[in-house]
Amino acid sequence: MTLAAAGSEIERLIALLARLPGLGPRSARRAALTLVKKRETLLLPLAAAMAEVGERVTVCSVCGNVDTTDPCTVCVDASRDPSVIIVVEDVADLWALERASVMRARYHVLGGTISALDGTGPEDIGIGRLVERALDPAVREVVLAMNATVEGQTTAHYITERLEPLAVTVSRLASGVPIGGELDYLDEGTLAAALNQRRPFR
Amino acid sequence: MTLAAAGSEIERLIALLARLPGLGPRSARRAALTLVKKRETLLLPLAAAMAEVGERVTVCSVCGNVDTTDPCTVCVDASRDPSVIIVVEDVADLWALERASVMRARYHVLGGTISALDGTGPEDIGIGRLVERALDPAVREVVLAMNATVEGQTTAHYITERLEPLAVTVSRLASGVPIGGELDYLDEGTLAAALNQRRPFR
Repeated sequence: MTLAAAGSEIERLIALLARLPGLGPRSARRAALTLVKKRETLLLPLAAAMAEVGERVTVCSVCGNVDTTDPCTVCVDASRDPSVIIVVEDVADLWALERASVMRARYHVLGGTISALDGTGPEDIGIGRLVERALDPAVREVVLAMNATVEGQTTAHYITERLEPLAVTVSRLASGVPIGGELDYLDEGTLAAALNQRRPFR
Repeated sequence: MTLAAAGSEIERLIALLARLPGLGPRSARRAALTLVKKRETLLLPLAAAMAEVGERVTVCSVCGNVDTTDPCTVCVDASRDPSVIIVVEDVADLWALERASVMRARYHVLGGTISALDGTGPEDIGIGRLVERALDPAVREVVLAMNATVEGQTTAHYITERLEPLAVTVSRLASGVPIGGELDYLDEGTLAAALNQRRPFR
């Protein structure tokens, strides 16, 4: 839909903004208008930040994280435990685990899951590179932190098989009741997992 | 919240994206990640479009619309009826009315409403300029297309009083049941307006 009342530059901006996740056509128009109104404080800094990211950000050749350096800040961080690799589907998952700040370990970003439907095989998501990294004698544990979805768990099972011959412990995230969760609102699968994996109260 | 795992450039991009309406911290992270992944097709074009808009877009000195020209495309469009001015609160409202494409008229964008609470007076939203425009003998009708809110209607009443001495017809948008609306879900005010302003069925 074109806006004869706005310049074609604004129309183009709206069309591009609408392609961001979380923004539909209506919110893209609102966002464009906010940008136009906040030219100095938002529009120009955001344009500059995007250009900067576009110029400098790259994918880490070791773990698949995005950063301005290669290897990334996480991979070269000497204060991290080199014996643990946490395998995640996406960079967003890496960020989420970092915000939880429980383990200072290394990561391996698959960038997807094995999916027969989409034709994504093990090598498309760099599982070979993960096995190579796990061959390093310094690595003692691989934590599979895939999403608790069918695709995520299929991928986790496949990786477990591939790592079986290696001298590494393969672990996975605990399943159960989320913190703050109410039993009444949880699905049967989660409740079953929480019951089956119950722990002593201590 | 900082992301030690991402570069500071990405952190800055996320912080700026989170200031757009419709994007919270979580969706701003998703948007940033999408941008990084779609560098060529989305990130760089969007950065360029923003820089372009920042450089070229300006506010029309006649009606308050945003455009790359001043006066704007709407104001200089000779095919539009010069005898009608549609008064709106915001540029977004102008765009919405243009999408409805019912009247090819001129506009006057107030950029706000009269608000005792916020200390916004008639002159802060350019009502004086509207009165000046309405003094032009070519103008025969002023359509008040303010939001159906207390502030919008207060502003509409004030403008009506200011235009009273002039030789222009002042009209307002019809109130009633929105197209596709179900009576059961509508508030009493809307139903009362729809009943009071009922029309012959023809």
